[in-house]
Amino acid sequence: MRYTLQVQYIGKNYAGSQIQFENGREIETPTIQGELEKALCKLKIGGFPAENKIRQVRTVFSGRTDRGVNSVGQVIHFDTDKSIVASKFVYQLNEILPKDISVSDLKSVDDSFHAQKSAKRRYYRYVFVNRKYKNAFDGDLMRVKFDINIERMNKALSYILGEHDFSSFKSSGTLNPSKVCFIEKAVAMRDGDKVIIDIVGNRFLYNMIRTIVGTLLEIEGHNRSADHMLEVLKACDRRKAGQTVSPYGLTLMKVEY
Amino acid sequence: MRYTLQVQYIGKNYAGSQIQFENGREIETPTIQGELEKALCKLKIGGFPAENKIRQVRTVFSGRTDRGVNSVGQVIHFDTDKSIVASKFVYQLNEILPKDISVSDLKSVDDSFHAQKSAKRRYYRYVFVNRKYKNAFDGDLMRVKFDINIERMNKALSYILGEHDFSSFKSSGTLNPSKVCFIEKAVAMRDGDKVIIDIVGNRFLYNMIRTIVGTLLEIEGHNRSADHMLEVLKACDRRKAGQTVSPYGLTLMKVEY
Repeated sequence: MRYTLQVQYIGKNYAGSQIQFENGREIETPTIQGELEKALCKLKIGGFPAENKIRQVRTVFSGRTDRGVNSVGQVIHFDTDKSIVASKFVYQLNEILPKDISVSDLKSVDDSFHAQKSAKRRYYRYVFVNRKYKNAFDGDLMRVKFDINIERMNKALSYILGEHDFSSFKSSGTLNPSKVCFIEKAVAMRDGDKVIIDIVGNRFLYNMIRTIVGTLLEIEGHNRSADHMLEVLKACDRRKAGQTVSPYGLTLMKVEY
Repeated sequence: MRYTLQVQYIGKNYAGSQIQFENGREIETPTIQGELEKALCKLKIGGFPAENKIRQVRTVFSGRTDRGVNSVGQVIHFDTDKSIVASKFVYQLNEILPKDISVSDLKSVDDSFHAQKSAKRRYYRYVFVNRKYKNAFDGDLMRVKFDINIERMNKALSYILGEHDFSSFKSSGTLNPSKVCFIEKAVAMRDGDKVIIDIVGNRFLYNMIRTIVGTLLEIEGHNRSADHMLEVLKACDRRKAGQTVSPYGLTLMKVEY
């Protein structure tokens, strides 16, 4: 039987969502997937093997999130040979998981469902602080001291709407050969002294959103025209884009199927 | 010249707001006041002594907050013999202070102003999570798994309004001999799966708010009548009240003069 779960996490203490391999062996570094699979194995309900046995539960994520990136709506699937009592299972799994990882919304799905391949839309949110002074409650959010022009930011974001080759915004770590993504929504808004950027697309390249935000900040910081974003996009050259900004402000909000 | 500052902090990494003494000597434990006075001494503007000199700047807080308690509106005052350029001073002080302490709203005040003695009203907020399941974003907030009846909580809180002897809610650490406080506002409300309790009073005893919240939770957890709060208050006996709950949910919101 196949089940899905939503997974919430604070990425700060993890080397990204996915278990990492080197020469076919798992690297011993904490990841969201690693912690989740360890916790699933500790549960004896649902036909999982008991602790200390070889891990037999494998999870499939909707997509990789980088080191430091958060999630409120990551979706995973896993298979088991027994049926699960949702409320007890979710409660117990949460108690085993570290404080900064939680699960919810267990659902039984058809075997044809695939957390990664069936995903149609991914919703991401980037948040940074736009204020000269520090505040004790800023946490790990990036702080931008110069004034942000939200109107110009939205004009720049409008250029990435639709289907484009996003090679200019990819990091070298991108494995998938296709650099084409379809962006459905890309808007910036102010919320007090925070700036929120929402981007929705069918897929995203490695570091793509953080590099888009870095390019927006280059426009703002150097008082360039919003059209700079179009030039960078058309160039299909990573060297034309801005810096890859801090991951701590990025959150995977939702995955739609 | 006398100046006031507002101070924001996350109390988790500090042994309360105030520098602690033992046999007349400062204890080497991080406190908000200790960090603030160290930072003030590093600033050469405003006639403060340079770093490595004996600390000469002393700060007076509106009141002590315990280990783990946060502030968005703590007020302090200090004296200096030179006038200060507000924007530069606040910026520099913030850059020197640790990440989880910040300052704002520098104001020049009359020498008769006293951050503690002139304070008329103190606004505190206690927040806890009311949900069976854990969530990765709960942070250090206390989680209450049983259902909370907000109406009953508000009835219980209504009994502490006005002037009362709060001996039942004091911890042994209370130094001030008077146990009488005037409570102007005490309300509970729900915000999603959080419960927020706002309490405004002229003064508070050591651990008083956390013990009031603990007594509210005893009423809820044991399904007692709201009148239990009145009985505890009238008893003037700490043994009648509930537990002192976690400090992490408590924030000093504002001090009025």
